[in-house]
Amino acid sequence: MNMANDTDGTERQEIELNQVEEENEKMTLLVFSSDLDKVLGAFVIATGAALMDVQVTMFFAFWGLNVLRKDQATAGGKNFMSKMLAWVLPKGPDKLKLSNMNMMGMGTSMMKHVMKKQKVMDLPSLIKMAQELDVKFVACEMSMNVMGFKKEELLDGVQLAGVATAISEASDSKVQLFIS
Amino acid sequence: MNMANDTDGTERQEIELNQVEEENEKMTLLVFSSDLDKVLGAFVIATGAALMDVQVTMFFAFWGLNVLRKDQATAGGKNFMSKMLAWVLPKGPDKLKLSNMNMMGMGTSMMKHVMKKQKVMDLPSLIKMAQELDVKFVACEMSMNVMGFKKEELLDGVQLAGVATAISEASDSKVQLFIS
Amino acid sequence: MNMANDTDGTERQEIELNQVEEENEKMTLLVFSSDLDKVLGAFVIATGAALMDVQVTMFFAFWGLNVLRKDQATAGGKNFMSKMLAWVLPKGPDKLKLSNMNMMGMGTSMMKHVMKKQKVMDLPSLIKMAQELDVKFVACEMSMNVMGFKKEELLDGVQLAGVATAISEASDSKVQLFIS
Repeated sequence: MNMANDTDGTERQEIELNQVEEENEKMTLLVFSSDLDKVLGAFVIATGAALMDVQVTMFFAFWGLNVLRKDQATAGGKNFMSKMLAWVLPKGPDKLKLSNMNMMGMGTSMMKHVMKKQKVMDLPSLIKMAQELDVKFVACEMSMNVMGFKKEELLDGVQLAGVATAISEASDSKVQLFIS
Repeated sequence: MNMANDTDGTERQEIELNQVEEENEKMTLLVFSSDLDKVLGAFVIATGAALMDVQVTMFFAFWGLNVLRKDQATAGGKNFMSKMLAWVLPKGPDKLKLSNMNMMGMGTSMMKHVMKKQKVMDLPSLIKMAQELDVKFVACEMSMNVMGFKKEELLDGVQLAGVATAISEASDSKVQLFIS
Repeated sequence: MNMANDTDGTERQEIELNQVEEENEKMTLLVFSSDLDKVLGAFVIATGAALMDVQVTMFFAFWGLNVLRKDQATAGGKNFMSKMLAWVLPKGPDKLKLSNMNMMGMGTSMMKHVMKKQKVMDLPSLIKMAQELDVKFVACEMSMNVMGFKKEELLDGVQLAGVATAISEASDSKVQLFIS
């Protein structure tokens, strides 16, 4: 906002109003799914919005937590159920499957192949880009407990928060989407 | 809002502005799914928001109607199709299945078990809590007709309304989410 | 807005405020799924809102593009992958299946039968109605490339646009829903 004339009262007020509006330019994505197609959609929206100077918060709950998992050994000190869940659920973006047409993994591979040929960014690159664009990643604490995931098993820089945080963020945002 | 000085005009205006804002603090959840995980998500958000003094309306359409069904005998006077649908679709919160990893019911039981151990509220308790917090439950009339459900088969206190009501509520709300 | 007295300054200002509000009365639906039930939901909301004078934009991405496909021969000049996708994915509204209870097509037929009996509009009629009510159909360019769909394979009057357009529209809208 390049203002030549800043002495006029009305003009200054207009600037303040604009600033208030800019503060409101937030987006909250509630990522509940770990289907590859839906997560790709969420990250295309998140990075697109961040490039347009929107402050984006992605709140990952339930299956969505799988997106944030590191592809490493499972943390110790888990009970039987948590070990089973850790083993059975996809470990990070490279392991996600399409919600449709997965066809035992064939559809998912095909889709990844086509995306590469079309020079569309893959999910790991989109996640890195989102991080560089300061998209905030928040993991739902209650889901972490249910799934038995530990903080060190998730991407670095992920914050933990409860549902109240997600609701406040969504309420502050112009755009809120539930990706289920 | 405890105001010591109410004689000043500016102050009074501020109160009015605050009240307008508070009126806007509404949330509308369009619950379209009856997958246990997504419905749990919807009710965690709904009760969380209600505890933060947000006025929450949950609009149940299509599969979402299953959430509101009582676990009782099907109402009489139904044609063949409606009888079949009533029989085949889940009867209330205790009968819902996970959208993923259901594994013939084993995954769903496991998840319920883990939630209990983690002292996370189960769905019937969340629904009761939502009712006590005055979350408004609305069933989509058109979906009721298509599914052949009758009002007496649904939870007490559920209102029936058309899509226009859902749109108005959503338009009045700061946060609207489609849980599909 | 029939104003008898237009000479008063306050009144004129009120009109301007009203107009600003009316401009904001927009709705954006991000249709990501091609499951019959969810797409029906999207179009019931879209046409309902349009009848209430809301300006509705439907942005179709990924599987959602299937909704817009014409039931005609696939366009020429496609590579092997695009030909396979064109063949395997549903061609337009008449070919969509339920997300649940499809039961090899039996559930979908049953649902269509019940909807007809209940005099609920079917999907092709809802799409036509949406077009007549000036609901804007936008197809996601990136998804078009990934799927290998060509513009002439989609309904007439569909615009192509990138994700930035979808984000701007959503940000301008009072109601935004992600139908996944």
